[in-house]
Amino acid sequence: MKKPLQLNPDRLFPADEKQRAVARRLYQQVKDLPIISPHGHTDPAWFATNEPWDNATALLITPDHYVFRMLYSQGISLEQLGIPTIDGSAVETDQRKIWHLLANNYHLFRGTPSRSWLDHVFSVVFGLEVTLCAETADYYYDSINEKLATEAFLPRALFERFNIECIATTESALDDLRHHQAIRDSGWQGKVVTAYRPDNVVDPDYEGFVDNLTAFGEITGTDVSTWEGYLEAHRKRRQFFASMGATSTDHGHPTATTSNLSVEDCQALYQKVRTGQASATEAETFRGQVLTEMAGMSIEDGLVMQIHPGSFRNHNDAVFHRFGRDKGADIPSRTEYVSALKPLLDKHGANPKLNVILFTLDETVYSRELAPLAGHYPSLKLGPPWWFHDSPEGMRRFRQQATESAGFYNTVGFNDDTRAFLSIPARHDVARRMDCVWLSELVADHRLDEDEAGELAADLAYNLVKAAYKL
Amino acid sequence: MKKPLQLNPDRLFPADEKQRAVARRLYQQVKDLPIISPHGHTDPAWFATNEPWDNATALLITPDHYVFRMLYSQGISLEQLGIPTIDGSAVETDQRKIWHLLANNYHLFRGTPSRSWLDHVFSVVFGLEVTLCAETADYYYDSINEKLATEAFLPRALFERFNIECIATTESALDDLRHHQAIRDSGWQGKVVTAYRPDNVVDPDYEGFVDNLTAFGEITGTDVSTWEGYLEAHRKRRQFFASMGATSTDHGHPTATTSNLSVEDCQALYQKVRTGQASATEAETFRGQVLTEMAGMSIEDGLVMQIHPGSFRNHNDAVFHRFGRDKGADIPSRTEYVSALKPLLDKHGANPKLNVILFTLDETVYSRELAPLAGHYPSLKLGPPWWFHDSPEGMRRFRQQATESAGFYNTVGFNDDTRAFLSIPARHDVARRMDCVWLSELVADHRLDEDEAGELAADLAYNLVKAAYKL
Amino acid sequence: MKKPLQLNPDRLFPADEKQRAVARRLYQQVKDLPIISPHGHTDPAWFATNEPWDNATALLITPDHYVFRMLYSQGISLEQLGIPTIDGSAVETDQRKIWHLLANNYHLFRGTPSRSWLDHVFSVVFGLEVTLCAETADYYYDSINEKLATEAFLPRALFERFNIECIATTESALDDLRHHQAIRDSGWQGKVVTAYRPDNVVDPDYEGFVDNLTAFGEITGTDVSTWEGYLEAHRKRRQFFASMGATSTDHGHPTATTSNLSVEDCQALYQKVRTGQASATEAETFRGQVLTEMAGMSIEDGLVMQIHPGSFRNHNDAVFHRFGRDKGADIPSRTEYVSALKPLLDKHGANPKLNVILFTLDETVYSRELAPLAGHYPSLKLGPPWWFHDSPEGMRRFRQQATESAGFYNTVGFNDDTRAFLSIPARHDVARRMDCVWLSELVADHRLDEDEAGELAADLAYNLVKAAYKL
Repeated sequence: MKKPLQLNPDRLFPADEKQRAVARRLYQQVKDLPIISPHGHTDPAWFATNEPWDNATALLITPDHYVFRMLYSQGISLEQLGIPTIDGSAVETDQRKIWHLLANNYHLFRGTPSRSWLDHVFSVVFGLEVTLCAETADYYYDSINEKLATEAFLPRALFERFNIECIATTESALDDLRHHQAIRDSGWQGKVVTAYRPDNVVDPDYEGFVDNLTAFGEITGTDVSTWEGYLEAHRKRRQFFASMGATSTDHGHPTATTSNLSVEDCQALYQKVRTGQASATEAETFRGQVLTEMAGMSIEDGLVMQIHPGSFRNHNDAVFHRFGRDKGADIPSRTEYVSALKPLLDKHGANPKLNVILFTLDETVYSRELAPLAGHYPSLKLGPPWWFHDSPEGMRRFRQQATESAGFYNTVGFNDDTRAFLSIPARHDVARRMDCVWLSELVADHRLDEDEAGELAADLAYNLVKAAYKL
Repeated sequence: MKKPLQLNPDRLFPADEKQRAVARRLYQQVKDLPIISPHGHTDPAWFATNEPWDNATALLITPDHYVFRMLYSQGISLEQLGIPTIDGSAVETDQRKIWHLLANNYHLFRGTPSRSWLDHVFSVVFGLEVTLCAETADYYYDSINEKLATEAFLPRALFERFNIECIATTESALDDLRHHQAIRDSGWQGKVVTAYRPDNVVDPDYEGFVDNLTAFGEITGTDVSTWEGYLEAHRKRRQFFASMGATSTDHGHPTATTSNLSVEDCQALYQKVRTGQASATEAETFRGQVLTEMAGMSIEDGLVMQIHPGSFRNHNDAVFHRFGRDKGADIPSRTEYVSALKPLLDKHGANPKLNVILFTLDETVYSRELAPLAGHYPSLKLGPPWWFHDSPEGMRRFRQQATESAGFYNTVGFNDDTRAFLSIPARHDVARRMDCVWLSELVADHRLDEDEAGELAADLAYNLVKAAYKL
Repeated sequence: MKKPLQLNPDRLFPADEKQRAVARRLYQQVKDLPIISPHGHTDPAWFATNEPWDNATALLITPDHYVFRMLYSQGISLEQLGIPTIDGSAVETDQRKIWHLLANNYHLFRGTPSRSWLDHVFSVVFGLEVTLCAETADYYYDSINEKLATEAFLPRALFERFNIECIATTESALDDLRHHQAIRDSGWQGKVVTAYRPDNVVDPDYEGFVDNLTAFGEITGTDVSTWEGYLEAHRKRRQFFASMGATSTDHGHPTATTSNLSVEDCQALYQKVRTGQASATEAETFRGQVLTEMAGMSIEDGLVMQIHPGSFRNHNDAVFHRFGRDKGADIPSRTEYVSALKPLLDKHGANPKLNVILFTLDETVYSRELAPLAGHYPSLKLGPPWWFHDSPEGMRRFRQQATESAGFYNTVGFNDDTRAFLSIPARHDVARRMDCVWLSELVADHRLDEDEAGELAADLAYNLVKAAYKL
């Protein structure tokens, strides 16, 4: 039996009629504001080449680790899902057959954000009017593929249709930014900027780190055999990224550790690190020292600094060795900020010219650490709920736990942080709705007046992110 | 003044009328489903002998550490409550007098799950129509005792009245399972199975561990002086438990630590452990290694593996020395899973034949660790809220925090985990109600359709537990 | 445009009409009960001298680190806010200009408890009828100053108008309590008592600790060169504080660590500590040992013991060096209680004569550690949500997470813990409202009858605090 697919206009709004009416009014004021996506992982090649996407499976399943991790968790192998192996050994190549796996198991996503994002994509982006299930799998597969081949579904057309004012991608320090250059050269007006993500030349545990340093020296024309040269290479590279539109850097360390060593100690540590001789503790100290250096450079060049700590990467050994990184096996870890950030803050924390945006995968720190820190330091702001917590309940907990100590104005609006380009409107829509829900609660119990809530709704949807990221 | 005791048919349902109507409809679909109780601590002797229970106090107070811990916390001594001492020194023996202590202090339980379970027992099981208080204490005591002496209140009669399809008890590796054998021999059709709980031959810190190993060798007819023999004894014992209906094992370690040592290291460690020479660290490593071995055996013999870590047992020294174990003095501790489980998962985690059900007393791990792990690994599922968190608010937090990353289908329905047999219908009823409340919220804000919610309600109440525990 | 300032009589109450009606009825029963403020930091000099406060800025901004930390977090310097420097270097002295900074940035407080406290003070205490904004800043400044100069706004008059039955201040072990003596000598009937806070002679890391010990010996006329003498000095000082009305002690340690050393070890440790030679670990052990000694003394003299651990004090180095302590830079830290308190509990925990009230800045321990501990030990009770968590959402979380394991009767009502005297009615009003909201939820979903909820509302607002603090 085919079931109609209809997104309820009141979705996510509270049950109580009067509060729902407030949420609805607030949402009306912000739902059509342009999207600013200041941090994410879309592929700039899409916008550079503007080539059509291949098919529904290659667009919506294979690259989306949210989607295939759930299927994998229920015993469907990554081979069956067509995830490519490192050694090139065979996996399923019948894209339609893989699509059926999603369709047949779509009930697994009940109650998850993936379900709501996919339904939004199906309904709003592709105009499908029945729900996905075994019976509609082929209809879906064919309809989506057919649309993807049309002009209206090319990357730039969707970018415009999505009302994206600006999107930031994330590139490694060694990226030549050719796609960003191509976008600029093309004359297309879509604003796609990069962000400086130097993990592969900062983290001594990164695959190929020592070689990466060599490449870092070459790409910057700098002698990186000294600590001073290494810092100079960062400065040059940051400048180059900024020239390609970057307004931010991004740092994905295992912990939030920062360090504040003397120059002599930095020099000595760097010599160990660059020759691959650093111990685990020294590697941690080095990552932490570079964060402090990055903060100093941010004060100089104005790039906003994003810290994304606390993911235990590639936790599933078998999957990592057979399929590689980013296969849905990253697991959050307990993360401490108060002591960890102190060295950086001792040096730069009182400087209002510094702009650090803190993220976490450990929700316990919202009320205990991050909101109190952001509610005090002029240099610190709170990023939105991240990754596993970019969901209705995650957003609700964030506002409930962070607002009272940090206020709204030490937060920075929403980040979609996604590779799944088509889900961007869905994700921003969820964020806008959930912020309006939270505001409607504050209005309903008289903690805010509705006119203030209206101002805040626009701030949270648009103004804060624009200001915080200087976009 | 006597106050009527009436369980409201809408208890625990949300205030909003429309959402309440959804919850009510969903609950109607599941309230009469049979109870599957896959993990608990009822005494198999009850069902083997089918003898009447003694009196209200001995049935409802003395064995229920939830009940007497609250009274103790307010200054009533365990002696006054008739809890037997280790050295046999005198305690209160007047059962009626002890019952009065509960009645006179029944207000202490306001807002606690014990209150709702007891009221359910009083009202539904015993048909009492006034609330418990000083004035009704004798009436309660006499009425309950009178009923307990009747056929209708014998253990097997209640088992049938409670509509229990299957109940699992928990026995130590050294138990001869005579009561389970007696149940089978009796011809009674009630399904009572055991579960393999080998802590007393796995945990070097367990009282009498070295002697327990000797007994383990004898009961299995195996030479346990070697690591290989020790593992063989487990294999045999698991087989025997399985032959008595067990479909699961259970492991109550202080932490979730697992290990993955070489065979040589296992052999050397075992020699230290079995002679009582292991250090605290070695004991921890040994417990962790045995968990990994148990996982391997689960893949072979199909028993589902339950891990219940994180209880600081017998925290109150004075109580432990005078009254012994399980006296309401077990306190949850911060518990880490992501690093702790990695050795086990490195060896067996990608194997869909392994079924591990994870429990926690540390709610912070729901969204940070357990839901992401269960939402990825095919071998991991999430057990329901446990012990202190087996309560309306605990259940609400579990669904709010686990659903978005784990989905519903990586959870396993409800466990009552209780010694309090009479409270089993009450506990399952609370779980079914709270799941319907959560589902009604997802329906009310349009995250789920009501037909899907109906399917899920039945899955959470019955289908998932049956499948997960192979019952 | 001037906007009317009106506190809605239903503020903080739930949206659902029927539940709101319950909350309203419960609140009516408790809103006018006298205020007992058993723990706080108001200045006893106010009540001793009864002199008028200076002006709006000096009363409401300069001493309130909740207020100026938010302004500082948004880039307004402490100099601009007139916070005095340690070295006396110049800061803003134009009090009206500072007031304008608050008025111009009042939107920053949206959603924070400071906003609701300030609005309550403006509306209820000062009778202002328009909201604070740039346009009304002068009107506010002048109106408030004018009122402060009148009889009705003198400290004692406000104390009486606020219906305060008793307030406790907090004084160091070295305080001569002259203001408390002056209050007693004055014949004024307001009940202002002290509390014994010995951190400056207990914490070896406290500024001037060694000198403080000397002063401690002098003020008590005791030879504190020995461990025994040191303990004797505490005993005498506690007795003196008790004679000035104290019914409690208070301990603000970095962690909840307690120790239980032999007398010999105590003697040896004390000799290191008193000569300033203790290592960080020894200092921690010493603080922990003194907590255990304080518990023993509490059993003797009946003073209630408050433990307030887990604040990382003076986190912002630049602010600490320029402006000193208590400048809004204290940040909560992860805090462990189960192992930390065990040494103290091993010695005294089973003694119902001991009364320890536990506080936390780490909300994760409510359900995991504190509620289970308080729901078992006769000597332990849970303090209310503290500091950053003294807020509507913080209070909601506390009740949701603590009630089911601890019950209501192992909690102790509300503490305002404030220096901001004028905000005391606002804070107690928020607590009473939020408790009524929680109770109304339990009534609405039939976990409590409304008559029980009414009893509880009065217990939470008045009876429990009076009993727990023996006031």
